[in-house]
Amino acid sequence: MHGKPCGGGHFVPPCAAEGRGYRKSIDNIDAALVHLLAERFKVTQAVGRHKAAAGLPPADPGREEAQIARLRRLAAEAELDPEFTEKFLRFIIDEVIRHHQAQGARG
Amino acid sequence: MHGKPCGGGHFVPPCAAEGRGYRKSIDNIDAALVHLLAERFKVTQAVGRHKAAAGLPPADPGREEAQIARLRRLAAEAELDPEFTEKFLRFIIDEVIRHHQAQGARG
Repeated sequence: MHGKPCGGGHFVPPCAAEGRGYRKSIDNIDAALVHLLAERFKVTQAVGRHKAAAGLPPADPGREEAQIARLRRLAAEAELDPEFTEKFLRFIIDEVIRHHQAQGARG
Repeated sequence: MHGKPCGGGHFVPPCAAEGRGYRKSIDNIDAALVHLLAERFKVTQAVGRHKAAAGLPPADPGREEAQIARLRRLAAEAELDPEFTEKFLRFIIDEVIRHHQAQGARG
């Protein structure tokens, strides 16, 4: 066991209490992220049905570029890396397009 | 222009109003996701400083397995694909580990 100064300078085996506090915050944020993503896919599933019914293509490059530009702007304001934010949105959109293609194939 | 029945059965060029409503919901959810991710990375940056100070490795496989199992459970309750949820968490954790490695290299 090795001790390190943590917060007020008192020594505890690697700042166990501080580590637990961080983990709880991350777990809370992750639960919120999962529930928001569930809600987002409920909306995009409705979009998929709408596109399939209207004979629209699954992907919409113009819309995606607008979404990316907007989120990069929001990310910069929130001090989140805009490059990562763009990768994140593309990761989500790729999954949405897979869903839409599957819906189109069934429709 | 081709018309399709939308909602109440009236015809409009591909359900433009319905499409706009979906897009607004997606944009709102994406703004919330970006702000939550910004907050999550604030916490993991603090974790990175903590790990670097304590000489702990950037990755923690036991913790990651526990996070994945918990989020898969939450995803199933929220009707989100658990496979996608696991991919999503690994995508985020990979970015966190890159940050921690960069912090370690600077520290």
